[in-house]
Amino acid sequence: MPKLDLSKIEARGGSGYPGKLADPVAGRTGQRLGDAGGLTQFGANLIHLEPGSASSLRHYHMEQDEFVIVTAGVCTLVDDDGEHEMRPGDCAAFPAGDANGHHFINKTNTVVSFLVIGTRTATETGYYSDVDMMVKVTNNKEFEFTRKDGSPLTKDQTGEDT
Amino acid sequence: MPKLDLSKIEARGGSGYPGKLADPVAGRTGQRLGDAGGLTQFGANLIHLEPGSASSLRHYHMEQDEFVIVTAGVCTLVDDDGEHEMRPGDCAAFPAGDANGHHFINKTNTVVSFLVIGTRTATETGYYSDVDMMVKVTNNKEFEFTRKDGSPLTKDQTGEDT
Repeated sequence: MPKLDLSKIEARGGSGYPGKLADPVAGRTGQRLGDAGGLTQFGANLIHLEPGSASSLRHYHMEQDEFVIVTAGVCTLVDDDGEHEMRPGDCAAFPAGDANGHHFINKTNTVVSFLVIGTRTATETGYYSDVDMMVKVTNNKEFEFTRKDGSPLTKDQTGEDT
Repeated sequence: MPKLDLSKIEARGGSGYPGKLADPVAGRTGQRLGDAGGLTQFGANLIHLEPGSASSLRHYHMEQDEFVIVTAGVCTLVDDDGEHEMRPGDCAAFPAGDANGHHFINKTNTVVSFLVIGTRTATETGYYSDVDMMVKVTNNKEFEFTRKDGSPLTKDQTGEDT
């Protein structure tokens, strides 16, 4: 039925970021609410950040609009303009192609949560603001991380042999 | 900037429903948060319902996914299975083409609010569950309401001469 039972939707951790680039998001889990409800056109994910964790590396999308509403705790939005405190009910919008890299971090001592909506597209390109990295997504599921010139990430970046 | 100042985003009333069919939504206003933030791929509207008001006539979409999260008060979701109480943080998903007509009503004495996300498509068809009506949307903005067989709505339905 349309009303979702959030207690029955798994909160998944993990990250596709290579090697130590995933460290900042180790305390992030997400519940795929839209998927659970049968939606395909956009993702609607309820993200939970442990104290000290980030939602992602600071990034922006070229093809996909993104929208966030905070649902619990006090998040800190970081973008090119600095830090912005966001409380439950506060919202932020990130239009596709706007090169203002952003992420959310939890600077408090309790878990914070927010709902993030992102358009689903078959392909996508994302750029990271604080590291020399981009991601290309193909077939709606295959992620390739490289430096911004397309060359492989280095061991210095990932801590791994390439 | 990406963080939205909700106090500066107009809450608009009004409805495109013809004649007296608009009466149930007279106490509804909406803030177009996604539009305010420059998004184009989906709508993100914060809806406020006065006591006794409905979000819409009970309906479903053929082309557009829809997602709702309650942000204030206690809403009642009505669908083909009956009534479902929804409190802040509760979510519901309505996949395109799922013929389970739904709307939200405020059965309490205080304003209730929810965020609704809906895909933007150039065309759309919607069907209403409790009245003999459908809507065709063209060019992302032109709404035509008719009976489900395509014939004009009647004076009995709208209270207006057709």
